[in-house]
Amino acid sequence: MTDFFKGIDAISYEGADSTNPLAYRHYDPDEVVAGKRMEDHLRFAVAYWHSFAWEGGDPFGGQTFERPWHPQDSLDTAKLKADAAFEMFRLLGQPYFCFHDADVRPETGTFAGNLAGLQEMTDYFGTKMEETGTKLLWGTANMFSHRRWMAGASTNPDPDVFAFAAATVKSCMDATQALGGENYVLWGGREGYETLLNTDMGQELDHMGRFLSMVVEYKHKIGFKGQILVEPKPQEPSKHQYDYDAATCFGFLQKYGLEKEVKLNLEQGHAILAGHSFEHEIATAAALGVFGSIDMNRNDYQSGWDTDQFPNNVPEVALCYYHILKAGGFTTGGTNFDAKLRRQSLDAEDLLAAHVGGMDVCARGFKAALAMLDDGGMEQALAERYAGWNTPEAKAMFDSDLATITQRVLDDEINPEPSSGRQEQLENWVNRFV
Amino acid sequence: MTDFFKGIDAISYEGADSTNPLAYRHYDPDEVVAGKRMEDHLRFAVAYWHSFAWEGGDPFGGQTFERPWHPQDSLDTAKLKADAAFEMFRLLGQPYFCFHDADVRPETGTFAGNLAGLQEMTDYFGTKMEETGTKLLWGTANMFSHRRWMAGASTNPDPDVFAFAAATVKSCMDATQALGGENYVLWGGREGYETLLNTDMGQELDHMGRFLSMVVEYKHKIGFKGQILVEPKPQEPSKHQYDYDAATCFGFLQKYGLEKEVKLNLEQGHAILAGHSFEHEIATAAALGVFGSIDMNRNDYQSGWDTDQFPNNVPEVALCYYHILKAGGFTTGGTNFDAKLRRQSLDAEDLLAAHVGGMDVCARGFKAALAMLDDGGMEQALAERYAGWNTPEAKAMFDSDLATITQRVLDDEINPEPSSGRQEQLENWVNRFV
Amino acid sequence: MTDFFKGIDAISYEGADSTNPLAYRHYDPDEVVAGKRMEDHLRFAVAYWHSFAWEGGDPFGGQTFERPWHPQDSLDTAKLKADAAFEMFRLLGQPYFCFHDADVRPETGTFAGNLAGLQEMTDYFGTKMEETGTKLLWGTANMFSHRRWMAGASTNPDPDVFAFAAATVKSCMDATQALGGENYVLWGGREGYETLLNTDMGQELDHMGRFLSMVVEYKHKIGFKGQILVEPKPQEPSKHQYDYDAATCFGFLQKYGLEKEVKLNLEQGHAILAGHSFEHEIATAAALGVFGSIDMNRNDYQSGWDTDQFPNNVPEVALCYYHILKAGGFTTGGTNFDAKLRRQSLDAEDLLAAHVGGMDVCARGFKAALAMLDDGGMEQALAERYAGWNTPEAKAMFDSDLATITQRVLDDEINPEPSSGRQEQLENWVNRFV
Amino acid sequence: MTDFFKGIDAISYEGADSTNPLAYRHYDPDEVVAGKRMEDHLRFAVAYWHSFAWEGGDPFGGQTFERPWHPQDSLDTAKLKADAAFEMFRLLGQPYFCFHDADVRPETGTFAGNLAGLQEMTDYFGTKMEETGTKLLWGTANMFSHRRWMAGASTNPDPDVFAFAAATVKSCMDATQALGGENYVLWGGREGYETLLNTDMGQELDHMGRFLSMVVEYKHKIGFKGQILVEPKPQEPSKHQYDYDAATCFGFLQKYGLEKEVKLNLEQGHAILAGHSFEHEIATAAALGVFGSIDMNRNDYQSGWDTDQFPNNVPEVALCYYHILKAGGFTTGGTNFDAKLRRQSLDAEDLLAAHVGGMDVCARGFKAALAMLDDGGMEQALAERYAGWNTPEAKAMFDSDLATITQRVLDDEINPEPSSGRQEQLENWVNRFV
Ligand SMILES: [Co+2]
Ligand SMILES: [Co+2]
Ligand SMILES: [Co+2]
Ligand SMILES: [Co+2]
Ligand SMILES: [Co+2]
Ligand SMILES: [Co+2]
Ligand SMILES: [Co+2]
Ligand SMILES: [Co+2]
Repeated sequence: MTDFFKGIDAISYEGADSTNPLAYRHYDPDEVVAGKRMEDHLRFAVAYWHSFAWEGGDPFGGQTFERPWHPQDSLDTAKLKADAAFEMFRLLGQPYFCFHDADVRPETGTFAGNLAGLQEMTDYFGTKMEETGTKLLWGTANMFSHRRWMAGASTNPDPDVFAFAAATVKSCMDATQALGGENYVLWGGREGYETLLNTDMGQELDHMGRFLSMVVEYKHKIGFKGQILVEPKPQEPSKHQYDYDAATCFGFLQKYGLEKEVKLNLEQGHAILAGHSFEHEIATAAALGVFGSIDMNRNDYQSGWDTDQFPNNVPEVALCYYHILKAGGFTTGGTNFDAKLRRQSLDAEDLLAAHVGGMDVCARGFKAALAMLDDGGMEQALAERYAGWNTPEAKAMFDSDLATITQRVLDDEINPEPSSGRQEQLENWVNRFV
Repeated sequence: MTDFFKGIDAISYEGADSTNPLAYRHYDPDEVVAGKRMEDHLRFAVAYWHSFAWEGGDPFGGQTFERPWHPQDSLDTAKLKADAAFEMFRLLGQPYFCFHDADVRPETGTFAGNLAGLQEMTDYFGTKMEETGTKLLWGTANMFSHRRWMAGASTNPDPDVFAFAAATVKSCMDATQALGGENYVLWGGREGYETLLNTDMGQELDHMGRFLSMVVEYKHKIGFKGQILVEPKPQEPSKHQYDYDAATCFGFLQKYGLEKEVKLNLEQGHAILAGHSFEHEIATAAALGVFGSIDMNRNDYQSGWDTDQFPNNVPEVALCYYHILKAGGFTTGGTNFDAKLRRQSLDAEDLLAAHVGGMDVCARGFKAALAMLDDGGMEQALAERYAGWNTPEAKAMFDSDLATITQRVLDDEINPEPSSGRQEQLENWVNRFV
Repeated sequence: MTDFFKGIDAISYEGADSTNPLAYRHYDPDEVVAGKRMEDHLRFAVAYWHSFAWEGGDPFGGQTFERPWHPQDSLDTAKLKADAAFEMFRLLGQPYFCFHDADVRPETGTFAGNLAGLQEMTDYFGTKMEETGTKLLWGTANMFSHRRWMAGASTNPDPDVFAFAAATVKSCMDATQALGGENYVLWGGREGYETLLNTDMGQELDHMGRFLSMVVEYKHKIGFKGQILVEPKPQEPSKHQYDYDAATCFGFLQKYGLEKEVKLNLEQGHAILAGHSFEHEIATAAALGVFGSIDMNRNDYQSGWDTDQFPNNVPEVALCYYHILKAGGFTTGGTNFDAKLRRQSLDAEDLLAAHVGGMDVCARGFKAALAMLDDGGMEQALAERYAGWNTPEAKAMFDSDLATITQRVLDDEINPEPSSGRQEQLENWVNRFV
Repeated sequence: MTDFFKGIDAISYEGADSTNPLAYRHYDPDEVVAGKRMEDHLRFAVAYWHSFAWEGGDPFGGQTFERPWHPQDSLDTAKLKADAAFEMFRLLGQPYFCFHDADVRPETGTFAGNLAGLQEMTDYFGTKMEETGTKLLWGTANMFSHRRWMAGASTNPDPDVFAFAAATVKSCMDATQALGGENYVLWGGREGYETLLNTDMGQELDHMGRFLSMVVEYKHKIGFKGQILVEPKPQEPSKHQYDYDAATCFGFLQKYGLEKEVKLNLEQGHAILAGHSFEHEIATAAALGVFGSIDMNRNDYQSGWDTDQFPNNVPEVALCYYHILKAGGFTTGGTNFDAKLRRQSLDAEDLLAAHVGGMDVCARGFKAALAMLDDGGMEQALAERYAGWNTPEAKAMFDSDLATITQRVLDDEINPEPSSGRQEQLENWVNRFV
């Protein structure tokens, strides 16, 4: 046991007027809104890797964080890290966590060694989860950090890497199932290319499609009840990643017949890197029937890399939850913080405060979204704007053909007059709630 | 007849040493390479709208170009413009042109009026084409300039706009067929949204899908032999356009069952706006089986809007043609210049020189691409890199499952060792040809 | 007089609970905070050009707005427009407006004609201002819309354009002085280049420096008491604009000895186009002693052009006013909306609601900024972070030299230990106020 | 001595037809053009850090390169690395190298320890340089990698870090002087901020200004004849770096009275990150009198981080050298490759081929630039475009005032007519040489 969080009490809800930096001001897990506890709406999860494994390096500098569980190269420090992690989960009180294999066990350099470490840590986690009540939102495999993955995992030109990836994912799916995980996520960190000059894109896509099919087949074989999720990201570390954004992933899933089996884990930061707003990605996935879960960590609009910051803009977060609620809210998914502390935020208090602040921002945004839906102003404006399509004539036209429609345009001298899109008025309306 | 190009002779090929600004230095239409004339490989087309209709305005300033066919508000000036256009085609000697309805006939404010103008100009064009031998690469409908289209065409919330769009596209398909067009293009300039606050994305996508199906149905009904093409673009004028990029379009086509019927017209500038290289978009479309044609006009990587400049970077252009050649070269498609003169390039000589320079850059790039393929260095490097997948074991693994592969990883102690991706060496190799 | 705003009552403050879309919910001009009325803190101004002159065009489409004062080609419609403008000022009740010459008088094609129009309209405005009490925050010259300016104004290669620009600015300074304007602004819309290939940057910078010196000299000559302001923008319409951002402008002002005479009018949208946050530009200008006034209209972080939208994100706006307040608040400057309605926002109600929403967002942001300063948490954190520099040793070191400091590092074995930057905790703190 | 490059012969010039991947095809150091050897024009330098110290990590993955001199934690491996480095310099035959203190000696955790290591390695380098004839283009201090620098060096809120930085720079200046370095460079990797919330920009700028003054004072004290250079970069690792771009640095230098003492080391990749073309940065620095030297490594226009790739686009490189030649060519500066191998380029052959390709691209670009200057077409077009300013009237106007000019505009009815900017024709002209 470490004393990393020594002297810090469990975070509790103190209300909006609290000035305690380690208290929830807006997130009260037990508050019931729209018929459910806030905890059950938001389904917060903490990502093990960034909170505990990240050492604070960047491309121009090394480790800044100094933790009792460093260096991260043995099962002993892995368990010390787990102790601290579950202590943090207890302090924060969020219901879920997520993990990569590579941040829970040491890298041994062989598959067998890694498997043994993962299995031992799975058992250790199982005990911890029982003790604390923290549940697993999802597990995943880190197939991008070790140099064996430098040219991709399932899309690697070397079939032995494909094999190593297959074995690795199987081991992580097994661990996820053993720990009662509600989803299993694949992020294709290096499934893409650095240069087209050395890449056969068609072949790599086929390999990635076949790999994902194997994952789905294995899920059914072992009776894993969780949802398989893919996490889109356009680039970084790769120059181009195949799971670019929600629309691209949807095309990929259709091509390999997987659009009914696989949904998306969307990250705000990745949406931004792809040139989209986060609500765009959510609304797109919802419209295409593949919305799954979210990583609620933002990038900086004005830095071109994956900054993975904790959310802090309530108006933006509110619009995201608005679209999630319109899509029916979370089922197996939840709100994960795949977020890194800033590299200068060295202290245990920073780690806690970052999560507390992020959860409060989400709670405010979520409640604003609910209030917007309750008010109904935006839905009513939409209904009015598209009302013309509810007429029998419009429906008939939809099933008609160009020649018939042309004749009607000529006969009826159809000459549409534009009407206002009312964007600013809708923006003002949103500002009544955020 | 205007004397806009008076005193300028037809452009001819004079060889690389020529210093004549109005001569081809690299594009010799009759040069035979890889068994075909350069003209038949490159299939150059000039876009009527930017060359003749664009007046030189930008968001901060009005018209700079003063042409004999301004103001563009009558059939008389439309014919004067056509005279000048075909005179330019004669001077340039390129085999094809492309047009929008809105740049060949005046806007009358009604569908019937526009139809009549289009029909009269179609006849006029027919005669011109016969006289000069210039052919039609593709026609299209401009459904974004007039205010009736401000909220979209097929995705407009108002079904009367959908109807007007349907009639408009029918008229343009008819004109394209009448003029022997080899393709018909749809660019969804305002098929997208300005704000999600007033947009039902799912419904709009369904409308756009149905509309495109009607286009395909009509093509078959009238026996149009050309290829239907969609032109991806991520944004501008809309904040978000549904035909974002090649991968997004492919997902859309699959969703509406159109991936066998519709291909893509890719533009370099739109690739750049979407965050992709042009060769990425070409290679993606080729890998997905939907490559059709190109608009070879570039954007500025460092300006965030659609600058539509003539191509001028031979190494970039070479890589584009390399991927086109790998995909089998053009069939119905070609190399269109959807390019605007810079707003300060006022003179007739600028207009000609811009096209001449663009065609020379393409010819150099194309010949470099052929030389690269002839040399075979990149294909050989690819073959070696992926060679592992040709073994029976790798093929068997591909049809296998996670558990079986895992067992093999454990049994055989598979532990892949990375090998060099050789990016710089391949870049150096490319530089031997450009 | 037009009836454009017919049936709409003057906007009044109704409090945060109001659901009236045409009421202020947060901006109460008479509310006294920090010893001043809100009106006197915020000093709102409406920009004449975008509100009244903009016709709703974009690079892909023409006019969407249809106003009684269109077409804008005579003194009659200019006066009709002025009537509507001052009617809107009366409805909004904001204290200031701003104008370009080109949006108040018709373009005649000659300097003498334009001058006569400007003088007639200056008189007309004078009467209107007296009647309504609306004051002039600043005037400026539009030297980018007409084709004569296509290659710049003061930086034009043609000295006759420099002359025309000099005469134009003189006329606008005269009008601004006549109307009691509190500032005079120069925005170098086309002072920059499209391509370096045809540009002598050194010469153009010297011309721009000399021009600005003439402006300052003329100000003193006529006894104009207002502040001369330059408005930075990095690009658009030009590929590169010389007044790129605050830091670049400061370098330019120093080079020509003008840093004591000229301050900056900063625009949020231009900050974003330059890759900066708006608070960065404000803090930079403040640190360099050249902060003047603001245009509080935002760009879309994910569109690469100048979208000029009304502000709608309170947390962002709060940080901007925080830095303005730290710099002492506005003196001659104010909060101008250089903002365009979205092109689909056709109605008079949209125009009013957009301003109302923008002013409310600013009022909320301003009050949050005041509360943050009152609380003092951020200032205290800053004071603690830099406290080490207040010691005599640190001050001595500052005036010392490398060799002396090195000796001290060796003698005292100085080995600094990093301490937390507390970024997330400060972000959470901000979220207590917004 | 390592055998890292074993079996590889010294690179020699074999001419454009060579297909040897380890031969110069365009760079012949002894070729005399414009009265000087190519080696003396281009003044190539290899950067020690990226070539030898970089281990191939990125934010998502660890070391991929495995070198005999890893781990880099002792003087023994430092000397092994130096042996390999000078062996590579011998193979490449480039005249210069550059170094950071941190890549030539181990990090000991104390200033005294680092100083001792640097001094020992300086001696070791001195011997190597004598043996091989390789000279030092510049030295610099790495004040961003170790965690002590996480909040900046001279701008750190902790004065002890300022002190440590002062001592570090002194030690590096001493080493640079000892090794006959022709310049000394400062890159402010973390001189900037992560968030304005914890930053006093004005105070930090003053500290940075004072620090740079100390550097200049120390240079004069020790009689160092080299040029002091600052390397602009807009961001990464910091969110904002104070040495943003050339224009910003010029403003900074003027503010602290250093614009005569300090020049700029410009990097192509940093230009791109700042939203500028590289030729823009060169032309700006030249126009402002602060051009010094270049780092000829590019970023990817479509990746938002510092990719530091070897140059590979001849047309772009040609324009850069064109502006360098117009500014008089290099004096103390040169062409440094501050470039990293791609992370998958594992082999010694990759390391050599990358430099060979980069030097060939530069040689082609340089010769094209010379040919353009010889031809004179662009200079003539410029002269004609600005010719109006050579008249006595124009010169008189320049020294005149707004009122006088206005009178002349009215009297002479000055009404300028635009003339073509000829951008495409100039682009075509450039394409005759590249
Ligand atoms: Co991320
Ligand atoms: Co994520
Ligand atoms: Co375009
Ligand atoms: Co196009
Ligand atoms: Co603007
Ligand atoms: Co402005
Ligand atoms: Co760099
Ligand atoms: Co550099």
